[in-house]
Formats: sequence, C-alpha cells, structure tokens
Amino acid sequence: MAARKIGILHPGQMGVSIAANAKGETNRVVWASEGRGSDTKRRADEAGLEDAGTIARLCAECDVIFSVCPPHAAEDVAAEVVSAGFTGTFVDANAISPDRTSRIAATVKEAGITFVDGGIVGGPAWKPGTVLYLSGAAADEVATCFGDGPLEVAVIGDEIGRASALKMCFAAYTKGTTALLSAILATAENLGVRDDLYRQWTRGDAGFPEQTENRVRNVTAKAWRFAGEMDEIAATFRSAGLPGEFHDAAAEIYRRTAGFKDAPETPSLAEVIAALARDSGDV
Amino acid sequence: MAARKIGILHPGQMGVSIAANAKGETNRVVWASEGRGSDTKRRADEAGLEDAGTIARLCAECDVIFSVCPPHAAEDVAAEVVSAGFTGTFVDANAISPDRTSRIAATVKEAGITFVDGGIVGGPAWKPGTVLYLSGAAADEVATCFGDGPLEVAVIGDEIGRASALKMCFAAYTKGTTALLSAILATAENLGVRDDLYRQWTRGDAGFPEQTENRVRNVTAKAWRFAGEMDEIAATFRSAGLPGEFHDAAAEIYRRTAGFKDAPETPSLAEVIAALARDSGDV
Repeated sequence: MAARKIGILHPGQMGVSIAANAKGETNRVVWASEGRGSDTKRRADEAGLEDAGTIARLCAECDVIFSVCPPHAAEDVAAEVVSAGFTGTFVDANAISPDRTSRIAATVKEAGITFVDGGIVGGPAWKPGTVLYLSGAAADEVATCFGDGPLEVAVIGDEIGRASALKMCFAAYTKGTTALLSAILATAENLGVRDDLYRQWTRGDAGFPEQTENRVRNVTAKAWRFAGEMDEIAATFRSAGLPGEFHDAAAEIYRRTAGFKDAPETPSLAEVIAALARDSGDV
Repeated sequence: MAARKIGILHPGQMGVSIAANAKGETNRVVWASEGRGSDTKRRADEAGLEDAGTIARLCAECDVIFSVCPPHAAEDVAAEVVSAGFTGTFVDANAISPDRTSRIAATVKEAGITFVDGGIVGGPAWKPGTVLYLSGAAADEVATCFGDGPLEVAVIGDEIGRASALKMCFAAYTKGTTALLSAILATAENLGVRDDLYRQWTRGDAGFPEQTENRVRNVTAKAWRFAGEMDEIAATFRSAGLPGEFHDAAAEIYRRTAGFKDAPETPSLAEVIAALARDSGDV
C-alpha cells in the first residue's frame, strides 16, 4: 500500500500516541499548530509529526484525518474539517455517544467526506494493551493506516455507532466505578465510618482500600475530560432505554475534581475528599 | 449473663438467621405470626422460635427486639413496637439511611425505649462471614445477646447512625455495581455490541463476562427489596453532600426486575434484559 499522509486533530497525550502508531515507517503524519499550546507542540515534535500550521492546510494535504479530542470538542473539530473543504476520510475516535457520532457522520458525509467511527479503549498507545475499535464501511481501509506498532486495531462492523457504543459501554464500568468509589470514600469520611468501611472491605480483599484510594487520587488528573465522557455515557444509556443517572452522578464527581487538571503532584485523599464535598453547581 | 427473651420482627430469610444466632443455647427467641405468611411460619418453626401470636404480646414478653425487614417497612415496625408499649431495647438492623435511623431512634426514645443502631453486612448468617454492626450507648449490651454462632457482632461506637452509615457505604459498591453492570449489559445488547464488550472485558479478566452475567441474573430474586435499599443509599449520599443519582439509577434497575421475586428459577439473561428495557415509570 502506498504511503499516506495522515492528519491528527489534535496531538494530546492520547492523540500523539495514535499519530505515532499511524506514522510507523512509511506514513507521514501532520498536525496543525495554530491555536494549540506549547505542550502539544512539544509532543508533536517528539513524535516527529509535521506541522501544517493550519487546519485548512492539513485538510488540503491529508488523505485521512483522525479526530482525537475531549468529547465536548468533537463536533467543533468535525465542523472545522468540513469548513476547510476536506474530501478524504474522517475518523472520529472520540469518547462520544453513538447518537452524537451519527450526527457528526451525517454532517461530514453531506460535505462529501467518508466517515469512520472509532473508539479507543486503554491508555496512550506506547505499549501493547490499547485497542482502536473502528466501524463503518471504510473501517478496513482506515485500519491499514497502522502497521506493527503497539496499538491494536479491531474492525467491528460496517455500522457507524458500533465503535462508539462499545467505547461507552466499556468506560461505563471502569470510569463509572472509579467515580462511585470516590463518592463512597467521601460519604464514608463525612459520616465518620471510613475506617470501619476499610476494615469491612479488607475482609474480602486485603488490598481493596489502598487500591481504591489510588484510583480515587490518580483519576483526578483526568477528571476534567472524564466529566464530558460521563455525560456521553449517560446519553448512551438513555438512548438504549436504560437510566442515565449513574453517569450523571459520575460526571458531577469528575466536575468537582476537575480543578486538579494541572496539579503539580497527585493530591492527597484528604484534598480529593474536600473537593468532592463541594457542589459544582451543575447537578 | 441471665438468659434473655428476644423478639424478632420478622423472621424473613435474614431475620431468622439473626434469630437463630441470638437463640444459641441459652436465650429464648420469639416471633409474632399475626399477619405473616406461611413461608415465615415455616422458617420460624424450623429455627425453634416461639410464637407470641401478636406484636403486642411479643413486646410484653421480650427484653430486646430486633427489627429486620425491608427498608420501606422499618418505620412501621418501630411504630408498632411503640404502640404496643414496649419498654426494653429496640435494635433497628435494617438497611436504612442514618437520617431515617435517627428519626426512628427519636420516636422510640420518646416512648422510653432504648435504641441501638444495627447494620448487617453479608448474607443470612448460617455460616461465618456475616457481620452485625452495632452502634449506640447500649450496643455492648445488645452484643451480649449473641454467643458463639457463626454471626460476627462488631460494636463500632456510641453514636446512633454509624452502623447504618457503614451498611449504606458498603452496599453502595456491591449492590450499586451489580445494578450498573445490569444496565451496561442491557445497553450493550440494545446497541448490538454485547459480544464485542465481552471480548474486550476478557482481555483483562477471562472470567468477567460470565461472572457478570451470573451477578446480573442472580440478583433479580432480591431486586424487590434492593430497590428500597438503593433509595436509602441515595439519601445517605445526599445527606453527606455527594450526588445520589448513582443509586437513583440502581433503584430503577431493581424496580424494573422486581417482578422476578418469586420466579421458580433464575431467569435467563435475555429475560433480565427484556425486563430492564421496560421503564418502571418511577424515574
């Protein structure tokens, strides 16, 4: 297969790892520095990405564009690509509901763009264990962008929305339970029974209290973008006829701890609990 | 310590096991058959409990009464004991919020009854592993009702509400995650990605899909009473300043499957998912 020119919007921590996997030995991968911060530039430079400067130029140069961004930005990124007159294949690999994916697909298809649905399960793909799920008629073609890097690519059908649905259902448990455990620790602390709860937990699993504290503290660095993802999962559940309130609550938990985004170090449990006790005003 | 006469309201599957542990070799344990069904009578007879006939007579005879009933019935049981003129020690061992416990405590104390807060963690106490947590000034005295049966008794302080809070925080995870997993399986099924989800889950833990299906199917027999417990947990979270929506959703899940209460056998996953897809009208 001929070498391709692939665009990445944008090289955040996850996006740059997808870009590096797509680059491999044969492809060129391009980003657009306009309006992006210095951390993004550093990541793009380290991964050997080429800077197209603007999204318009990136769209003019590339065959395939991957959108990897926080959930709330997914539609804006797609709209920019449409505005730029792109006519290749657009892969939305974001953690968004199948309904939002379908709306984006309709918009880009109307502009003559080929749409592929994507969903990433796992952390930044520098080592094995992360899977990029793809669905849609052109999913097989998109899969050939990737060589033998650590990222695993799995095509799960022709239907737009499947990759998004799978991502939502998987994250519903992992990120949903981390939020639930955060709420439990804060409730137990506020009611004066956290030590008693730990003793009871220890009866079933000696490591559970410590693992839980680590999950609750470590997730705070990503809470700012998980809040939007929880909103997407809530919408996904509701569209399937199930209650969305689990992830309404999870979104609220992550909104309350979103302020730890750029914390110089992992906050203490006491700091997390103090943040959790403050209503964000959103629920 | 002198043998005591202990009342149990009511000998359901959990209550009769608490009663049997309290009976031991030295105590007499009494129940009240008026208005109870044939299953309750059979359980009481098998455990060697004495039938006082009415709650009024039970209250006249006993030193200590344990209330073990579904959460929605806790206040009614306490009210009946107050009406009967009981003057001993009343232990509310139900899965209710600390606030509801405090309201019950205030009512019974006003009637001259000694109140102890209880919370049971684990299944019916026929074998080791189940703990009856007690809190309140008279908790130590109540603990002496139990001898060397399999039930473990732990006093966790003088404060009314602590035992209830611990029970709520513990069940928040166990029963909350079972409800969440039920919602996830139904969402994944409805969106056509349940097999894909199982494959992804299997990468982390080969047994997870099967364990999840078993949890989701087996819990349906108890869903009718878990719904009320989830409402209590939601109230507990809110009183501690945390979002209650996790367990609003869990309550709705259990309400949708409450109809499996007396099912002759464990329903298939397809049957559970069909029930989960029907809105109970309560959320």
